[in-house]
Amino acid sequence: MRMYDLIMKKRDGGTFTKDEIDFIISSYTKDYIPDYQMSALLMAIYFNGMTNEETAHMTMAMAHSGDVLDLSEIKGIKVDKHSTGGVADTTTLVLAPLVAACGAPVAKMSGRGLGHTGGTIDKLESIPGMRVELSEQEFIDNVNKYGIAVVGQSSNLTPADKKLYALRDVTATVDSIPLIASSIMSKKIASGADGIVLDVKVGRGAFMKDIESAKKLANLMVEIGNSVGRKTVAHVTNMDEPLGLAIGNSLEVVEAIDVLKGNGSKDLIDVCMVLGADMLTIAGVAKDTDEAKMMMEEALTSGKALQKFREFIKAQGGDERIVDDLSLLPQAKYVEPWIADEDLYIKDLYALDLGLIAMRLGAGRSTKEDTIDLSVGIMLGGKIGDFIKKGQPIATVYANDKNKLDWAMNEIKKYILVSDQYVERPQLIYM
Amino acid sequence: MRMYDLIMKKRDGGTFTKDEIDFIISSYTKDYIPDYQMSALLMAIYFNGMTNEETAHMTMAMAHSGDVLDLSEIKGIKVDKHSTGGVADTTTLVLAPLVAACGAPVAKMSGRGLGHTGGTIDKLESIPGMRVELSEQEFIDNVNKYGIAVVGQSSNLTPADKKLYALRDVTATVDSIPLIASSIMSKKIASGADGIVLDVKVGRGAFMKDIESAKKLANLMVEIGNSVGRKTVAHVTNMDEPLGLAIGNSLEVVEAIDVLKGNGSKDLIDVCMVLGADMLTIAGVAKDTDEAKMMMEEALTSGKALQKFREFIKAQGGDERIVDDLSLLPQAKYVEPWIADEDLYIKDLYALDLGLIAMRLGAGRSTKEDTIDLSVGIMLGGKIGDFIKKGQPIATVYANDKNKLDWAMNEIKKYILVSDQYVERPQLIYM
Repeated sequence: MRMYDLIMKKRDGGTFTKDEIDFIISSYTKDYIPDYQMSALLMAIYFNGMTNEETAHMTMAMAHSGDVLDLSEIKGIKVDKHSTGGVADTTTLVLAPLVAACGAPVAKMSGRGLGHTGGTIDKLESIPGMRVELSEQEFIDNVNKYGIAVVGQSSNLTPADKKLYALRDVTATVDSIPLIASSIMSKKIASGADGIVLDVKVGRGAFMKDIESAKKLANLMVEIGNSVGRKTVAHVTNMDEPLGLAIGNSLEVVEAIDVLKGNGSKDLIDVCMVLGADMLTIAGVAKDTDEAKMMMEEALTSGKALQKFREFIKAQGGDERIVDDLSLLPQAKYVEPWIADEDLYIKDLYALDLGLIAMRLGAGRSTKEDTIDLSVGIMLGGKIGDFIKKGQPIATVYANDKNKLDWAMNEIKKYILVSDQYVERPQLIYM
Repeated sequence: MRMYDLIMKKRDGGTFTKDEIDFIISSYTKDYIPDYQMSALLMAIYFNGMTNEETAHMTMAMAHSGDVLDLSEIKGIKVDKHSTGGVADTTTLVLAPLVAACGAPVAKMSGRGLGHTGGTIDKLESIPGMRVELSEQEFIDNVNKYGIAVVGQSSNLTPADKKLYALRDVTATVDSIPLIASSIMSKKIASGADGIVLDVKVGRGAFMKDIESAKKLANLMVEIGNSVGRKTVAHVTNMDEPLGLAIGNSLEVVEAIDVLKGNGSKDLIDVCMVLGADMLTIAGVAKDTDEAKMMMEEALTSGKALQKFREFIKAQGGDERIVDDLSLLPQAKYVEPWIADEDLYIKDLYALDLGLIAMRLGAGRSTKEDTIDLSVGIMLGGKIGDFIKKGQPIATVYANDKNKLDWAMNEIKKYILVSDQYVERPQLIYM
């Protein structure tokens, strides 16, 4: 088999066999295929696509390009959740303890933030003492003992995907639905999930900009997951505006605690309920999503979910007192609200731009090498359609640098639009 | 300007400005742009094409990426001829002395053969003593003194094209008409041509496989050439079968001498007449192609063309006695004819396969590093439609290795088909 012939085959609209895809992925991982041939192939795939079968083969080839976690020592059906990334998307911090409190084992590998999107691992690191790197055995033991463990990805998970993604990122070949689908699914499969619940974000703050493409990606991933024996369900949710109210690492921990205490932003709770119901159903803990939702309501109101969050933090070396004393979390030096000077409605929130402002305050990374400031960010006063009373904050900026604070206070006014007229709330869940 | 954005622009169907193309070509030549980004762009160009204006900009950017020959010291209009490459295509060896004998200055840079296609420089090297590397001044002086000089390409001619072509060759991005056009035209422009006559070969032994694509390429190059101030004319000619009868370096010198003596294969002469007529007309030596053809006929019958060939050889250090004593050319150890055992017609000649057999006999290179054997090859007994009398050779193999001889004798019978029925001659010139 020659890479040249395979590039030509895809260029001319051909369909790869499983053997051809295995050859491409394994040779590329071992550096036998140079980047310049792979990027030509990626561009040919961008134009000519891949069939669902090709995409499933690529997913499995990438999943097996490095370590594949064996979670068979953990009792029960391990269901993973994945979001394609957005702004103020704090669902994992809420769902992990909530679902675990309902009896489904949570053995989760999460990522770090990049660009305007946050990452669960960064958020967890804002909890003093919290360890996000556990040995495989410790990870498995924690899940068996506490029902929950959340860690960073092991370094040798899907090396093919890491290498391919880095190349796609510099050759304008990221925006290909089969390539996106195989990248996401390979990581989930390599991290040992029996079942997968997907949240495909769509809108200005998301990778997918239109609902049709997002649904296509969601359906493709469901088909791939099920075809390789992983019960998979997907939703498509709104990322035109931020999901929750908090943008920034420790701020999002605060919001997660708020939700686990039975408060919090309605949209964030709604998305958690929809995803969590699927997780519990696939895990076999609830017989259907209605029962699953009742179980989650009970876990929230009874305090069991919050208690599971405390246990989880303690089990990974974190200071669980933060749950009751938020001042133990990293604090920003400057906290400045933008106060409503009359009664008004939130008319629009630009998710991407608000995410980028938070990033520039220090909450995110513009390159993988950047370090982040866990305490800074933006707390919104409400979501689109929410009423803000005169004297209440429309948004609050958290910063550690006076210049950045002033810049951000000015900047957010461009991307948070208000109105004295009633504003309808946008649709939250499309699929 | 960022290469990433330019890849995305072309991927999404955009049109580059002159500045953008200059940036791409000059940065790539200087190794500022990595191969993996360039190959992604090349594949995007393969799919989305380039406008004629973009192609002209790319041609000029590549032409100026290295040395540009200044031939202003040579009096007269310098007209170059270029063939896109084929089998038994000995036109340059005939045309250079023929056109020079008619009074048009011939200052030509030629290439070497690769794969199944031959190269003028290799053929010239089969003449004992012949120097194909002259200094720029010597080159110019020879043209002014003798009206003719043919040399190999200087090493710093169109380095951008050299680098790009090597990359296209391994990433399945060669078959793109705008990329082919800019590659060819950039070399002609950098080598100082005032006018350009193009012979686009089409068929089994050519790079272009269908007549429509060949015409498209021909028309595009004409438009580019004229738009940058070089009077350009193009023809599309048949390369389903070899053009002349000789395939192999010294064999082709023999055939060229045969034509210059007023004999030779009719097809080879016809193509030389058509191309030569344009060269003389563009050079302003003839007022139209009819007059040009008459001048060439006269140069052939009077022996002036043959005399010019002798002068040309001597001027570049070669042994001009070969013209009268062909045994001074490299001779193969084994010469074996395939004899017709009855009266027959040549029914088909597979140009590509016959070219590859000659290459494997040693007449060509499968990689640039291969050395070649100047004496070996195949001499055809006729072209498609030609009558071969019983006892005459259908073809003759020239080899220096008994095993290769036996292999080739067997092999040519697969790719030279004969018939006892009359066979119509195919069309030679399509445009």
